[in-house]
Amino acid sequence: MQVIPKSVQNLIDELSKLPGIGPKTAQRLVFYLLKRKEEDNSLLGDAVLELKNGIRYCATCCSLTDIDECKICSDLRRDKDVVCVVEEPMDVVAVENSGHFRGLYHVLGGAISPIEGIGPDDLNIGTLASRLGDGIKEVIIATNPNLEGEATALYLQRALIPFNVKISRLAYGLPIGADLEYADELTIAKAIEGRQELF
Amino acid sequence: MQVIPKSVQNLIDELSKLPGIGPKTAQRLVFYLLKRKEEDNSLLGDAVLELKNGIRYCATCCSLTDIDECKICSDLRRDKDVVCVVEEPMDVVAVENSGHFRGLYHVLGGAISPIEGIGPDDLNIGTLASRLGDGIKEVIIATNPNLEGEATALYLQRALIPFNVKISRLAYGLPIGADLEYADELTIAKAIEGRQELF
Repeated sequence: MQVIPKSVQNLIDELSKLPGIGPKTAQRLVFYLLKRKEEDNSLLGDAVLELKNGIRYCATCCSLTDIDECKICSDLRRDKDVVCVVEEPMDVVAVENSGHFRGLYHVLGGAISPIEGIGPDDLNIGTLASRLGDGIKEVIIATNPNLEGEATALYLQRALIPFNVKISRLAYGLPIGADLEYADELTIAKAIEGRQELF
Repeated sequence: MQVIPKSVQNLIDELSKLPGIGPKTAQRLVFYLLKRKEEDNSLLGDAVLELKNGIRYCATCCSLTDIDECKICSDLRRDKDVVCVVEEPMDVVAVENSGHFRGLYHVLGGAISPIEGIGPDDLNIGTLASRLGDGIKEVIIATNPNLEGEATALYLQRALIPFNVKISRLAYGLPIGADLEYADELTIAKAIEGRQELF
């Protein structure tokens, strides 16, 4: 018997469509929302509905923005001769949060993945190439350290040769705070390969 | 620098308020929603806003319903002489999904918890008592197998003595599909205590 009221079941179904949220988690979330004040739920519902309002891709770096040119591209204090190439807008946030990069970004909008039918033409590579005249001296490739990210990095590395810019890739190695004991073989192998001389 | 557009950050903040969803998960969910079709997000947003529309507590069992008397209380085919007492409306769903109970329910709306300042008077115990005249022969106490649930069960057990009904409690023991090896000591102790004679 369907004992859950319709509006409750409806929200459980909608939440279950999100990645990492199964029916049990969705149910727990919905019963939490039912106990919460109506105003708080309105804030959440409105935030979902207004999420894409005014959001577009920056014409320069292809990241998400709600102004004409994104805050980073339009910031005069940024270092204009280095571009960090990432897969997604959330990677910009991750690199930015590290506080160790003062240059510009370029968002590819994904990675090359033959399985998902994503080729180089589906990524923002043309717009990257068109930026390379503007005094850019170095391109840091910061795609994900997985199969698709590696394929994309390799493709970019070759595609950018004619532009005569320095091309670099983020370092591989042990993540800070982790235990050597729990690191996987490949990460340790890469950490040995990329070891740094101390003196 | 605040690189995340305002509407995006707003939804990240709202989602982070939900239990079990930290800022990282919220960010991942929001970037997923940004890639999804606008229509799908509208369905989700509307579902949140309409969640509590018409939802009220059933006058009889205190569970959630969108009709006058909940579907279970108003179902003539249900066994009217057994009441299963649970803490929350989601527990009704859990027991109902087991397919092994054909009686009625009563939702307490929580459990006795001195730490959170919840006493017996804050629970729907009065309404339960008022139902016990209507030919109810057995009360199955199905509060959670934790400290608060146990305290509540004990309180109910004593409070219901004057009503002269059979009172039972869900069995403790090994959960089906689990490994004896991984079961905790208390569960094993309870399983031994409540062991069933086979012949």
